[in-house]
Amino acid sequence: MNIVKPQTIAGVMELLPDDQLVFDHIKQIIEETFLSYQFLPIDTPAIEKNDILFAKGGGETEKQIFGIDSSKKDMSLRFDLTVPLARYVSEHFSDLNFPFKRYQIGKVYRGERNQKGRYKEFYQCDIDIIGNDSLSIHNDALLPKVIYDIFQKLDFKGIKFHINNRKLLNGFFESIEISDKEEVLRTIDKKAKIGDEKTKELLTELCGEDKALKLMGLINNKRDNKELLKYLESLDLNDNYKLGLRELKEVYDYMIKFGIDDESIMIDLSITRGLDYYTSTVYETFLDGYESIGSVCSGGRYENLAGNFSKQNLPGVGLSIGLTRLFYQLQELGLLEKYREDFTDCLIIPMDEKLNFYAIDIKNDLKNKGYKVDIYLEDGKFKKKINYADKIGVKKVIIIGQEEYENKMVSVKNMEDGNQVSVKIEDIGDYL
Amino acid sequence: MNIVKPQTIAGVMELLPDDQLVFDHIKQIIEETFLSYQFLPIDTPAIEKNDILFAKGGGETEKQIFGIDSSKKDMSLRFDLTVPLARYVSEHFSDLNFPFKRYQIGKVYRGERNQKGRYKEFYQCDIDIIGNDSLSIHNDALLPKVIYDIFQKLDFKGIKFHINNRKLLNGFFESIEISDKEEVLRTIDKKAKIGDEKTKELLTELCGEDKALKLMGLINNKRDNKELLKYLESLDLNDNYKLGLRELKEVYDYMIKFGIDDESIMIDLSITRGLDYYTSTVYETFLDGYESIGSVCSGGRYENLAGNFSKQNLPGVGLSIGLTRLFYQLQELGLLEKYREDFTDCLIIPMDEKLNFYAIDIKNDLKNKGYKVDIYLEDGKFKKKINYADKIGVKKVIIIGQEEYENKMVSVKNMEDGNQVSVKIEDIGDYL
Repeated sequence: MNIVKPQTIAGVMELLPDDQLVFDHIKQIIEETFLSYQFLPIDTPAIEKNDILFAKGGGETEKQIFGIDSSKKDMSLRFDLTVPLARYVSEHFSDLNFPFKRYQIGKVYRGERNQKGRYKEFYQCDIDIIGNDSLSIHNDALLPKVIYDIFQKLDFKGIKFHINNRKLLNGFFESIEISDKEEVLRTIDKKAKIGDEKTKELLTELCGEDKALKLMGLINNKRDNKELLKYLESLDLNDNYKLGLRELKEVYDYMIKFGIDDESIMIDLSITRGLDYYTSTVYETFLDGYESIGSVCSGGRYENLAGNFSKQNLPGVGLSIGLTRLFYQLQELGLLEKYREDFTDCLIIPMDEKLNFYAIDIKNDLKNKGYKVDIYLEDGKFKKKINYADKIGVKKVIIIGQEEYENKMVSVKNMEDGNQVSVKIEDIGDYL
Repeated sequence: MNIVKPQTIAGVMELLPDDQLVFDHIKQIIEETFLSYQFLPIDTPAIEKNDILFAKGGGETEKQIFGIDSSKKDMSLRFDLTVPLARYVSEHFSDLNFPFKRYQIGKVYRGERNQKGRYKEFYQCDIDIIGNDSLSIHNDALLPKVIYDIFQKLDFKGIKFHINNRKLLNGFFESIEISDKEEVLRTIDKKAKIGDEKTKELLTELCGEDKALKLMGLINNKRDNKELLKYLESLDLNDNYKLGLRELKEVYDYMIKFGIDDESIMIDLSITRGLDYYTSTVYETFLDGYESIGSVCSGGRYENLAGNFSKQNLPGVGLSIGLTRLFYQLQELGLLEKYREDFTDCLIIPMDEKLNFYAIDIKNDLKNKGYKVDIYLEDGKFKKKINYADKIGVKKVIIIGQEEYENKMVSVKNMEDGNQVSVKIEDIGDYL
């Protein structure tokens, strides 16, 4: 038979089972936490119509899309979970209750060039809250609390939310008469990558040295949160600025009230989020000591989720964890070991096929008692059987031979130190 | 702005959140049960190279494939989880331990014509056990036990596994000198759909009345399992038949030993499984009283999983639940209500924005005590707030007004009978 080389397409993450267990464990913590805050699950198809996906216009997205080769070529694989959310909320508008809090954990697809840590297929874990016509600002504080809980459970205590407000930034830009706001935002957004000097240089080119200095003064203002808020209040600029500042302060106060540690919040006026999608609150999230991996969770407030699909005004706020990329980065840093749990408490090995039924009785009994117990019933020599136990990394093996069977005993072998003891079947639990 | 009509592509299942919760609940029971038997999770990409997907040759599959419109058109969406499993096991052969017990729950894609209950995207839940060179027959009994546990947990006590063995059938065909075995198998496979009369007619056309009668006698033999096995032993035909019979008996004995009720097993010689993929044990699974929905879980033993990808001989056995279709059918029959659980125990409503912080304190406290508690902090009149509580179907609402706040009290409203009581904050738990 002609042998085809077994390989995945380039640029996808596929894990071996031991790693998959860790991945699933993290995914489960994320999902449980979403549910614990009453976010409802939705599961949209991975394939959407092209007129849905490109409703905003193609642009950069169109280059990255995976098209579906149907005769009509009118559908494609989703590239994020936000467009499907917009379509979902518009399509099912009358069946949903607002504010609509939903989460979705699912795969998205992008035709990225092959590079390390960039994936063509990856999981996103999104939470969004969508209002019908209006949505209170406290929602912008609830989302980080959900993410905060997730990282606490994952034992990353040093999570830090960098928060900002785009209205405040816009107001400030207006106050110093900056004409090309978008380009200034884009430049500030690059600061973490290109450094202070280069940022100042680019801003000077854009709007002159005087304004560049003022901008750098604002975005580099790294005081204690409360002091910074006080300072910003003292500036007393235009209405846009004041509204943004009030929102920023409320989000900060609610974040504290919801139970986020002050240490885990940093009002950071250099956070802009590249997209022109966000209109008010914006967030990036970093892990203390691992700032090099970049933001592990980003998002913000948007004015209208679904203007392309509906005449309803649907303001919303969302945060998203790029799980596949995060997993890759934690793995590279060797930080995943702590999530590994024993998959199997013990493996039962009957020495001979005649003892299989007796071994199954013991397995059923231990399983009923709550043990994670596996049984090896394949034919073969003892060496092959104990090798299997060794390879799967199980710590205790229960060996059943003819003599043990006759005496209602088993041998419990400790795979770590090699010790073996004879135990009455009713006492096995004490030795696991 | 130009409005695009929000709609999914045709032929996919997309659920409203309340139904999605039920779907996820069922999916979770399936996954937990797989794990409780030490099946390891894998998660292969939804996109595979075409030479992988078509390694066996295109045929029927190629017509149903969703191609990916990349410039090279060399990849497609998977149409099942078995081809990816074969690729996975071949690709990662040296990193896996055998027997390799894996499960995968994932979406697969088929270009089906639009009809009710047929989906272009649907979930499959697969478990397979793959051996390296050999695989003991007891594995064929373990898989139904896993599925049995799942349906017990889903409260379908009347599940029935129809089992058969293809070697036994082949041996029987040889003993009566049937030349076109495959066509006979295909005809027998249709029996449940076309009925006895039509089956007999077709078999007579294929191999004459005499042989057709003998075949009908075999496949319509519906005795008690033990009696049927005894009868089949009495026939004492050729080696192929005897081997198949021995396997069938062993699978039956192990199924009983693993804890499946005899009532839930039916040795059924008319089960063939259409594909020429299966070589020995085959299963179909029906729910008592709901036979009309067809088999809810099917599979069997195959000789070599990955002949196209590897020179290793990899025998295996697998069972698969088509979850999306099953969900659709249970929904149509109105059988899903029993899986609905309260998503939220209570909703907290502060009457005024000034009371939000106090309300959040109460929420945090109740959440810490383990209640599923939500809070409604949007602005608006009381009527709007209580309407929201009504729409989400929550049974208890905690109302906080100025007076309650001053007296460290809350009002607990029972949404079912409309009663409302004043309660001290430390006693709220007693009223939920």
